[in-house]
Formats: sequence, structure tokens, C-alpha cells
Amino acid sequence: MNASAERLLGEFAAGKIPALARAVSIVENQRPGVDEILGALHSKLGNARRIGITGPPGAGKSTITTLLAEQFRIGGHTVGIVCVDPTSPFTGGALLGDRVRMERVALDPGVFIRSMATRGSLGGLAASTREISDLLDGFGFDRIIIETVGVGQSELDVARTADTTVVVLVPESGDSIQTLKAGVMEIADIFVVNKADRPGADRLRNDVELMLGLRKGAAHPKVPAHHGVDLKRFDRTPLRATEATDNARWTPPVLSSIAAKGEGITAIVESLERHFRYLENTGALRERRRERLSERVIEVADRRMRRRLWDTPGARGWLKGRVDELEAGSVTPYAVADDLLAAYGHLVTGTNA
Amino acid sequence: MNASAERLLGEFAAGKIPALARAVSIVENQRPGVDEILGALHSKLGNARRIGITGPPGAGKSTITTLLAEQFRIGGHTVGIVCVDPTSPFTGGALLGDRVRMERVALDPGVFIRSMATRGSLGGLAASTREISDLLDGFGFDRIIIETVGVGQSELDVARTADTTVVVLVPESGDSIQTLKAGVMEIADIFVVNKADRPGADRLRNDVELMLGLRKGAAHPKVPAHHGVDLKRFDRTPLRATEATDNARWTPPVLSSIAAKGEGITAIVESLERHFRYLENTGALRERRRERLSERVIEVADRRMRRRLWDTPGARGWLKGRVDELEAGSVTPYAVADDLLAAYGHLVTGTNA
Repeated sequence: MNASAERLLGEFAAGKIPALARAVSIVENQRPGVDEILGALHSKLGNARRIGITGPPGAGKSTITTLLAEQFRIGGHTVGIVCVDPTSPFTGGALLGDRVRMERVALDPGVFIRSMATRGSLGGLAASTREISDLLDGFGFDRIIIETVGVGQSELDVARTADTTVVVLVPESGDSIQTLKAGVMEIADIFVVNKADRPGADRLRNDVELMLGLRKGAAHPKVPAHHGVDLKRFDRTPLRATEATDNARWTPPVLSSIAAKGEGITAIVESLERHFRYLENTGALRERRRERLSERVIEVADRRMRRRLWDTPGARGWLKGRVDELEAGSVTPYAVADDLLAAYGHLVTGTNA
Repeated sequence: MNASAERLLGEFAAGKIPALARAVSIVENQRPGVDEILGALHSKLGNARRIGITGPPGAGKSTITTLLAEQFRIGGHTVGIVCVDPTSPFTGGALLGDRVRMERVALDPGVFIRSMATRGSLGGLAASTREISDLLDGFGFDRIIIETVGVGQSELDVARTADTTVVVLVPESGDSIQTLKAGVMEIADIFVVNKADRPGADRLRNDVELMLGLRKGAAHPKVPAHHGVDLKRFDRTPLRATEATDNARWTPPVLSSIAAKGEGITAIVESLERHFRYLENTGALRERRRERLSERVIEVADRRMRRRLWDTPGARGWLKGRVDELEAGSVTPYAVADDLLAAYGHLVTGTNA
């Protein structure tokens, strides 16, 4: 390890916030030292609880994140927040309107907030988020909130890096919950219907609960919602009773909140606590974390493969020599890719074999 | 090649639109046969002109695309349109409001329109767009318009797959053009200030021209705009004269349009024509296409590498056996990734060595 990475890690271990901020920058930009820093922290990970908050634009995620952070602080915990927002290359600003600044918690030294721009491939975004969460975990934060706007599948991948994922919906987010993509149902551990005082909130909650029943393959007949079916009929099924009594299966609770008025936050904190206990008791927490470790290895290996193949002159130079044929149409990119891997693929082993 | 891919290619060559639509689906979802289909078309590529249209949400890109398609049709050319839009996983709909349906050209059999969802990693999106453009090129379309909303760097990558990239701006897109990211300036071959009848349009045009002057390292002093500087002073420099007289360097024209009223479209068509001639005359077209071929090989090779390493039981099984150590913290993901590549990296060569 070089001297500057070593000094950084020393300051990091001493709890110096500037060292944390510097480490985050190094990770975000994949600058030299990233592997050393994260490698050195690896054995210190696992103390933080990671909470993902996702949902469509305008659902109130930032407000809920702020209120949750306040609750955690009241409970005596430190909080790291990672905000993942698509930014516009045309204005440099957030694409989806002004983010609530979280000014209520920003000055608290027990809270660290980092916004991440979605530059580069979003495929790498989940990896970066995971690594920055690791930094916050290794630094000693008790709770890590990963807030990500639900723009695409990749943001769902980001949410999936958490131990518990909260999906925030609002009555405006669609005429009917039927349009919720399967991916959303799969990642949600807790649903929150925010702006619950608005028209349509009850129906949204009913719809989500109906879908959860269908997803469980429970007693609910598989009928499309709102086609002459009385939704109240299904609503009687005490879906939420499950979470308290049955440790073997987690049924996501469907909570209500009016975050702008601070209402409903305590119930979210309680559900987070219950979900975490559920994860611990069933071994699911360990399983999730083990999966995260495997995924991390795969990410690192993919990155190294590409680097070893393309950051050396060999393969690129060889490719240059084949462009004439490609241009003439006498070979296809597929055949050339195969030839290239046959000739230079051994480079990815990192050995001199 | 299997029988179904062969039949598809036969119908494709016969100009059957359903075969094109099927091929596009195969490519978009990377289903079996994708390499065979694209490989078979490879020698037929290069007849279409590829035009990228990008800009912030609400800039009027769809309207301009529709009007350009109409102009191309009047000129006797067929047109393929690829629309790349981020979709929300929460509603399944387009994230950024309803897309103009392009109904004015949708029923014209000489126009093919395909919308692409931004699922999966956006890193793969540029690759998919390029491949679908290849299909349209191989099918025989004369002009291909790739319309992409400017959500992030990855969308800029999409635009970069075109021969000519048009960046559409509107007076609302920012207080000052100073915030335009460097990436945007680099990819733009033609600027269009749309909604040119709105307040701020003149200033936006001035700002862009000023930045172009700065970018060229021309006679303009490098001063920040709007800091007591009379912008008109720079405006006198006949930036646009360059394009007519100097084939060695292309200075992007800054055009005005009011697309909603159909105004300014002819000038865009003319600039596209001029830019294409410039690309041909200077050899830049050939250079861009050769680069595109190299990038294609790199994409294919990356995809195959990952598949060969992870879609076989060996590496994944081996990784599973290391998770206990990872969990215990006795090894880091970085060390395990290195070990894994040393042991299984040879798989990416695709040979049995």
C-alpha cells in the first residue's frame, strides 16, 4: 500500500470526516487506492444496518429519509446517507427537480450525507453505492440510508444492496397499482403509502395488499383489481398479522404516512426494527450479506477483466489491425471478438501464463 | 445458423416489416440468434445516415424528429426511428411525461419507429441502440434517427453512435449555458435552440456561440459569460462562416427553430446535409464508422468474456466455496477476485487451453 493510502486509512480509523469524504471520492471515481482502502476495511464491515429507500419521483423519499435519520439520532445512532440521483448532462443539476436539502439533519455531526451523480454506466452505480456504503459501515455509522429515485431497473439494483428496502408510493404514482413492475414487488420489504391524506391513498393501499396476497399464492383468487370486484372483501384478510407471528415468512407491511407533517414515521422505524429482527432470526441477514460478498467479487472480477484486457496495448493494437477487414465487410465484429479473446483472453488471468 | 434465424433473415432480406420487428426484439433482449443475425447483415451496412437527436426533457426532440422524418420522406428517403426513453419501474410508463406519439409519420410505411426501454444497465443501452441501428441500416432505411433524452452520460454515449449529433436546447434549460457539461459540447455537431420565440432564446444562442469560440481556442478571450462582458462583442465573430469555407474543421452551427409551428426545420435538414458532406470530404465519416466497428468488437468481447466466465458452473461454484472466508473477514473480495481470475480467467479465451 502506498503512503498516502496508509495515511488516509489512519485518519479514517481515527474518525476524521475529511478522510471519509476523501475516501468516498476515491471510490466514486475509481481512483488509484480504491482496492487497498476497501480491502483494508473489509474485516470491519457488518455493524451497520443498511436501509434502501426507493420510489417514483416526487414520492417524498427525501423527507422520509430526513425524518428516519432524525429518529435514528434520537435512538442514539449515527447515520450515513447516500443519495443516488440522476443528473442532467445539460444543466448539471438533478434531473427530477430540486432535492430536499435535508437541512434539518445536515449540520448534525452524527449524520454524513453524500450525493452520488449517476455518471458512467448505471451498471457500475450499484457497485459504487455498495462500496460507499461499505466505507460508511467501516467508518462506524450505525445506520446507512441509501436513497435512490426509481428511474430504472438499475436503481432497483441499487436498492437491492440494502438489508431492508422501503418502497415509497404515492396516490399519484399511477391509476392502478397493477402497473407496478414485478421487480418492485420483489425488492420491497416495507411499503409506505405517503401523502396518505390524498384521494386514492386507500385504493393504492388496497391494491398493494391485494398484489401481496397474489404474490404469496395465498387464498386470494387471482382476479384483476377493479373489474367489478369488491376490494374490501380481500382487505379483511389480516395480511399484516403475519409479520408478528410467522418468522419463516415476511409479508411486507403496507404503511401509511404523511411525511410533510411528520406523520407515520414511528411506524416505519418500528417496521424496520421488526424486519431487521426477522432477518437476524431466520438467518436471512447472513444470507443477504453473503450474497452481497459474492456479488462484490463478481463486480471486482468483471472490472479487472476489462482493465487487464483493454488497458494494455496488446489487444487494442491487434484490434486496430483488423479494422480494415471489418470495414470491408469480410469479417464480422463477432468473429473478430472471438479471435481477440482467443489471442488475448489469457491476459485476464493476471498471471504471465 | 439455426433454421429459424435463417428464415428470419430470408424474410428480412425480402423487406418484410414483421421480420424486422422480430429481429429488433431479439437484439433488444439479447436472445439466441442475435450474433448470427447481426453477423449476417454486417456486410450490408453503411448505406444509412445516422442522426442522433438529444437534449433535455421538454426540449421538443420528438417534434423535431417527426418534422425531420417528414422532410426526409419528401426527399424520397425511408426513415427508421429509434426512441430511447427512460421508463419508470413503478408505473411502466415513460419517466419524463408523455412522448409525442409521432402520429403524423407513424402510419407511413416508409417510416419505422421503435421505442426502447432503458432496462438493464445503461452501459448496455448504447450497444443495443447501435445494434438496432445496424438492423435498420441492413434493412435498407436511408436515414436513421436516434432520439434520446439527455438523462445522463450514458445517453450521450447513445447519441455518439450517430454520424451526426443534433443537440436541442430550449431557453428554459438553464439560466446560463455555462452549466452545459463538457460532454455535451463535445458530441454536438449541430445545435438547435428550439422554442426560439421564448424569452432568453437570444441569450442562449449567444452563450452557445461564445462557448464554441472558447472551445475552438479561437481569438475569444476566456472570460466568464455575463460578468460585465458585452456578449454582443463576441457575437460579431462570424462563427458560422467556417462551415461553408473550411472543410478541415467543423464549427457546429447554432440554429433556431419553433418546432411546434414547423419553423426552422429546413435549416436543420440543410445543416445535416452539409455536415454529412463535410464528414465525407474530410474522411471523418470513414473514421467515425471505423471507430464504431472497434467499439462494437469491444462490446461483443466484453459480453462474451462475462458470459464465458459466469455462465459456466466452474467459477461460480468456486466462488461459493470462498464465501465463508469472505464472511469471516480473513480474505477480501479483491484478493478472491484475483484468485478467481487466475484460476478461471482462461475460460474467456473460448478455447480449451
